[in-house]
Amino acid sequence: MKYSFRNDYSELAHPALLESLLQASNEQNKGYGLDKHSDNAKQLIKQKLETDNCDIHFVTGGTQANATVISYILRPFEAVLACSTAHINVYETGAVEATGHKVVTEEGIDGKLTPAHIEHALKAHYDEHMVKIGMVYISQSTELGTVYSYEELKAISDYCKEHNLYLFIDGARLASGLAASDITFNMFKDLCDCLYIGGTKIGMLSGEAIVLFNDRLKPYFRHHIKNKGALLAKGYVVGIQFERMFQDDLYLQLGYQINDLARFLTNELKALDVPFFSESSTNQIFPIFSKEVMESLSELYDFEVWEPVDGGFAIRFVTSWFTTKEVCEELIEDIKKLLNHQQ
Amino acid sequence: MKYSFRNDYSELAHPALLESLLQASNEQNKGYGLDKHSDNAKQLIKQKLETDNCDIHFVTGGTQANATVISYILRPFEAVLACSTAHINVYETGAVEATGHKVVTEEGIDGKLTPAHIEHALKAHYDEHMVKIGMVYISQSTELGTVYSYEELKAISDYCKEHNLYLFIDGARLASGLAASDITFNMFKDLCDCLYIGGTKIGMLSGEAIVLFNDRLKPYFRHHIKNKGALLAKGYVVGIQFERMFQDDLYLQLGYQINDLARFLTNELKALDVPFFSESSTNQIFPIFSKEVMESLSELYDFEVWEPVDGGFAIRFVTSWFTTKEVCEELIEDIKKLLNHQQ
Amino acid sequence: MKYSFRNDYSELAHPALLESLLQASNEQNKGYGLDKHSDNAKQLIKQKLETDNCDIHFVTGGTQANATVISYILRPFEAVLACSTAHINVYETGAVEATGHKVVTEEGIDGKLTPAHIEHALKAHYDEHMVKIGMVYISQSTELGTVYSYEELKAISDYCKEHNLYLFIDGARLASGLAASDITFNMFKDLCDCLYIGGTKIGMLSGEAIVLFNDRLKPYFRHHIKNKGALLAKGYVVGIQFERMFQDDLYLQLGYQINDLARFLTNELKALDVPFFSESSTNQIFPIFSKEVMESLSELYDFEVWEPVDGGFAIRFVTSWFTTKEVCEELIEDIKKLLNHQQ
Amino acid sequence: MKYSFRNDYSELAHPALLESLLQASNEQNKGYGLDKHSDNAKQLIKQKLETDNCDIHFVTGGTQANATVISYILRPFEAVLACSTAHINVYETGAVEATGHKVVTEEGIDGKLTPAHIEHALKAHYDEHMVKIGMVYISQSTELGTVYSYEELKAISDYCKEHNLYLFIDGARLASGLAASDITFNMFKDLCDCLYIGGTKIGMLSGEAIVLFNDRLKPYFRHHIKNKGALLAKGYVVGIQFERMFQDDLYLQLGYQINDLARFLTNELKALDVPFFSESSTNQIFPIFSKEVMESLSELYDFEVWEPVDGGFAIRFVTSWFTTKEVCEELIEDIKKLLNHQQ
Repeated sequence: MKYSFRNDYSELAHPALLESLLQASNEQNKGYGLDKHSDNAKQLIKQKLETDNCDIHFVTGGTQANATVISYILRPFEAVLACSTAHINVYETGAVEATGHKVVTEEGIDGKLTPAHIEHALKAHYDEHMVKIGMVYISQSTELGTVYSYEELKAISDYCKEHNLYLFIDGARLASGLAASDITFNMFKDLCDCLYIGGTKIGMLSGEAIVLFNDRLKPYFRHHIKNKGALLAKGYVVGIQFERMFQDDLYLQLGYQINDLARFLTNELKALDVPFFSESSTNQIFPIFSKEVMESLSELYDFEVWEPVDGGFAIRFVTSWFTTKEVCEELIEDIKKLLNHQQ
Repeated sequence: MKYSFRNDYSELAHPALLESLLQASNEQNKGYGLDKHSDNAKQLIKQKLETDNCDIHFVTGGTQANATVISYILRPFEAVLACSTAHINVYETGAVEATGHKVVTEEGIDGKLTPAHIEHALKAHYDEHMVKIGMVYISQSTELGTVYSYEELKAISDYCKEHNLYLFIDGARLASGLAASDITFNMFKDLCDCLYIGGTKIGMLSGEAIVLFNDRLKPYFRHHIKNKGALLAKGYVVGIQFERMFQDDLYLQLGYQINDLARFLTNELKALDVPFFSESSTNQIFPIFSKEVMESLSELYDFEVWEPVDGGFAIRFVTSWFTTKEVCEELIEDIKKLLNHQQ
Repeated sequence: MKYSFRNDYSELAHPALLESLLQASNEQNKGYGLDKHSDNAKQLIKQKLETDNCDIHFVTGGTQANATVISYILRPFEAVLACSTAHINVYETGAVEATGHKVVTEEGIDGKLTPAHIEHALKAHYDEHMVKIGMVYISQSTELGTVYSYEELKAISDYCKEHNLYLFIDGARLASGLAASDITFNMFKDLCDCLYIGGTKIGMLSGEAIVLFNDRLKPYFRHHIKNKGALLAKGYVVGIQFERMFQDDLYLQLGYQINDLARFLTNELKALDVPFFSESSTNQIFPIFSKEVMESLSELYDFEVWEPVDGGFAIRFVTSWFTTKEVCEELIEDIKKLLNHQQ
Repeated sequence: MKYSFRNDYSELAHPALLESLLQASNEQNKGYGLDKHSDNAKQLIKQKLETDNCDIHFVTGGTQANATVISYILRPFEAVLACSTAHINVYETGAVEATGHKVVTEEGIDGKLTPAHIEHALKAHYDEHMVKIGMVYISQSTELGTVYSYEELKAISDYCKEHNLYLFIDGARLASGLAASDITFNMFKDLCDCLYIGGTKIGMLSGEAIVLFNDRLKPYFRHHIKNKGALLAKGYVVGIQFERMFQDDLYLQLGYQINDLARFLTNELKALDVPFFSESSTNQIFPIFSKEVMESLSELYDFEVWEPVDGGFAIRFVTSWFTTKEVCEELIEDIKKLLNHQQ
């Protein structure tokens, strides 16, 4: 196998983060995220968010972050609304439901919701025999690699505020999502009640930062993290990595870097008339190949087969901080050969 | 502050583990614990356990491990029986109850249960108006630093088998617990249905190994881990560390090392006529000091104040792989001065 | 208001049941369903089911029955598959999810599932990142008044057995459902793992009978009922009513009676060229009227407005044991007048 | 068997309630408790409570009422504090824990808590590693037949208000509890956040009234009832009975009536030097008999054997609205014979 484009969590950690960890290897730090590195990391993130008025907590995985946040926000009879392709609906083995809450879905467009979708869901849940929709969950970028523009996100945010719905943004791939959109860190404080800034998929060993903007969501959140089994004893391991990510622009730089490589692949493939399953501008792209090409390619590279479509299979290539321009060029060359051979 | 004896998770990770992690920093590995390091680590652990007939899964924290295991084993109307001082009863913010299950408690002796305690609990839960006790939870070592002897554990194990109770052993501090008792790794397969081998507290960044011996507990456990938000994307980070821990005797060696230092402290303090809150043979010890000595000492060292007792306060010193003989000797010298000063 | 066709639970209880209750008003009975009436009722039901090899338990509501059964059957990481229009998906305020389980849905046809739907769902849930589908939920009759034929139910049953899926039939309106189909009581033992026989909607004060056919579903079910807050202190109140319902053919007779009245309404309305929202053969029918007719009619009769459709509104008429031929004839006359007036 | 003193739910319903039900047997009523009888019943209860500022909801059982209220009040990481003998701790098969919450217990005195107990529990739960105690649960009368005086209840109420704890009073046996104490209906509005007024144990077929005084506990409670499977389709069945209970003083009269009979039994037994397990002033009394007397008595009467004690067994006699003076006198005569025979 030449290389794996299967996902963005196949490699240990970005060298800069490993270096920061090693520098702290002779320290004694307080447990449970009450250490100086975590404090500093939170300060640095707040600077990027351009607000002091938020609480930040570190956990170690996306499903964990989502289930912890959603079960904190909702009352027992309330549900979260999401796109039917959403991670919480499809890929979390019922983790949200395990905390007692229904995930109500709307089909969405390209993995995204609009105010019209939310309105449709609200109208369908009108009395006490149905769950009350208490919050909206979206992700930036989405499962299909698409992103919300500022205008799109603002429309959802306004709709949620008008209708007393909490808005939670899953940023498992936020670095890539921000690098591909006109949304910047400082906008979130006005747009949503809660944001999670993903670390694992952009080069951390593990680590996700939950940011609570809404004052009503702040009290006793540490109790809730522990209640959900998500309070890490060595919280400083995550703190040190976020500290490094946000002491300069490393977090966002990596987002641009992986998007550039994905765009290179997209452009090259389009030049070869390869069709795509979705219009992604982020680090996940979904080209469509014939069964033969897909199978031959799978002997050289590792990737995920997304789903069968007309004309073959949509597959997923994911670029990561570890991916080089060289390996991308090699991939394109190999695809060219396979496509030529097919004709 | 000269040094922290507060706990055994104040320091990043043992140098040997960091080295192993760095060696893997240019690899691409499969996600979700399906990588070669995790496979190898599981093989090495199975060799120590002297059985192939068990399933092993890695998660990242003790509360997470406990809640995941207990909620997998129990039916909805069943409860877990534990000592009233047990971690799951006191220090997990209701994480087990959050999965729907009552923790039934017996007072125990020195943090330990006996068959008589289990019998007492079974007799008190006799019909459908009470929870059915479905499993017994014990820990080795306990919250009070004590350990079960083989004879004691065998008695509990036999009782549980006779009464159709699953037995789960929480080994958050198993290295220290084994080093202090006549129980060895190869005995567990015959003694319990499930064991968790703690990594965080003996020098890993994070990581706990859940070992399922009972065949009925094996199917779909990975589904359950994901359902509980505990399936780590970069599972190989934990796998690499357990691989290193068990490729030789490092895991157990560290257990002996920290117990030796704790015993040194205990012996020195007893020579100074310092009384103890419990008879610990492991890496947590609970000396009792007057309020004055405790307060003066807290200006030099960090430690946990366990609880007020007659004659002052029981405090907790915990030794870790990071603790040196030198710092222990310095602590004793400082205590000597404070005790002399007090007289 | 002349009459309410809103539902089949607007009236206290069938006179024969009230008489049986009054006859028992000077008795002392054991609590929690352990009384002689409940025992006798269970025997009578078993005779109708033509099997002794089942356990029967009485509870007091449909949502309660569904949530109790489903949470007993499923493991924590498992989901129940249902039609998207199913009661458990739409009208139970997340009661199933409140017990920790996702309701996976397929769109179905006329409120019903086929093996193809189940297969589609199974294929979409193929690894540990998705819930495992553990059971299938259907209802007889459905929310749209339709029924499964024996052939249709047998196909689902066979599919479930082949694929290790439990099959649960919600019979909130079983009397009407059986009276409208070629399925008889004695067939269920071979077709499903669990059945609930609805009492409330066919004339009981309240009461639903949960029938467990599968041996694996029997142990400790009373514990589970209590755990779900569904164990009635005066269980004999339900027992007496089921005893009366099944001591002769009253249960099924009432099913035929209400279906006949609904068929009368359907035939008369079709003669008036009134279109229908679904092809119901049971006691719920869904005619479509213009907004004007619907509103005028609502001044005379009470009924549920189901949903807006092309050409006006689908409304629901439900017949009950209390409904008379006379009131149905009067309804038709009033509708005739409104339709004439409209032209 | 001459008579059952086993409990106060062995008999169908008080004749006055049955009469009211029969009078409504030709009515059509709205479902789900939105009917005129339920409305009227709530008005009548509010008059007794001397406040309009409360919401009232009817459900069908005590465990159901408790689990519904507690899971509505608490956040996921919060626990309810109760006496160790409390119904929710011992006799509900983990129904509260099934909703995700720990029941923290204090031993109490005679089945009752004091502010000192609450303070002890609060001090033991001081940081995010422990559950946060969010509410206090007490019952009037208690499981041991004892009652809180106004002074005792006021002290608890004041303590809870000072410490931001919700106070919930389980009144499964409130009629008897009020008749035995100096507390009156109009006091509750100032004393607690939520009260449940028990109907089943004082003569209703089934039915408990949940009264929410605190404004924060009112919104969407009907959603929550449905979510917990506790919203009765024929809510008017309970409404009619509460309407009758509170249209005059029937509810409280029955409380006095059953207490009088229990007091008669107590006085007679004390005259015979029979010792008691607790000092009950309500309709549950706990005399102690030798094994021989207990066994002989059990051939004549049905009752619950509470627990073995020095000198034999504490047994429980419960009087109900169905119990007559004659049967009590006969019981005393039979006990006299057994005691004489024993000597």
